[in-house]
Amino acid sequence: MKRKCFGEDLCPVARSLEAVGDVWSVLIVREAFAGKRRFGEFERALGVAKNILTVRLRKLVAFGVLEQVPAADGPRHEYVLTERGRGLYLVLMALRQWGEDCGGESPYVLVDRRDGQPVKPLAFHAHDDRELGPDDMELVPAAEVKRR
Amino acid sequence: MKRKCFGEDLCPVARSLEAVGDVWSVLIVREAFAGKRRFGEFERALGVAKNILTVRLRKLVAFGVLEQVPAADGPRHEYVLTERGRGLYLVLMALRQWGEDCGGESPYVLVDRRDGQPVKPLAFHAHDDRELGPDDMELVPAAEVKRR
Repeated sequence: MKRKCFGEDLCPVARSLEAVGDVWSVLIVREAFAGKRRFGEFERALGVAKNILTVRLRKLVAFGVLEQVPAADGPRHEYVLTERGRGLYLVLMALRQWGEDCGGESPYVLVDRRDGQPVKPLAFHAHDDRELGPDDMELVPAAEVKRR
Repeated sequence: MKRKCFGEDLCPVARSLEAVGDVWSVLIVREAFAGKRRFGEFERALGVAKNILTVRLRKLVAFGVLEQVPAADGPRHEYVLTERGRGLYLVLMALRQWGEDCGGESPYVLVDRRDGQPVKPLAFHAHDDRELGPDDMELVPAAEVKRR
């Protein structure tokens, strides 16, 4: 069964999911942020079957999340995050924060490299820096905002 | 083929993906935030096959993202976001922001209900409110942070 394509959807959530809407793709991106670059490194870190990994890496390259670069020390290539791929950091960390909020312990804490202090939890802020929850915000047509 | 289970993973990203690591689950949550509550509403809004929707709704209930409540006007039930499910707002909005940053136009803007102004882009901040990018942060063992 061919899955519906979300890439042309007007909603940017759906478009994003076309690129990273499966577990393996997100975990591959997580490993890329952790410094993994080679097919074998992803394979070992994730315990994923070679055929699944091959398909997912190809898809992430096609969507401009990863790019293939020649390996420094041999004929093989490596996979590195593009600028677009690095933009997924917030998505990963939002998933991480939700997993922690759901009560699971995490053995790691996200800290500021500069002073080693834990960073503030991810949250939305208004133009005057008030913190905003889901009920404080709404999506309105862009044309309506421009008219104001 | 039985898929690997990520629910017991120590990584909170992997745990989160066990609950919402597929396109339909995320889009169902998006529709729930938009006020959809009934099976038929989700079906029409997403154009998803009944059998897929049934399985996904059951899974979201099992993971505590949605709960079934009796419908006000009949024998049927409806699905509403739990507190845990509402915590997915940041994940959805991070996906949305990434989709927009990737160059796709979006017909909607996220605004503060209080004054109608666009909200600030989602970003991490240090304890002293400096904005932090991916390279400014690292994950360190929790025990190490406690020792400081």
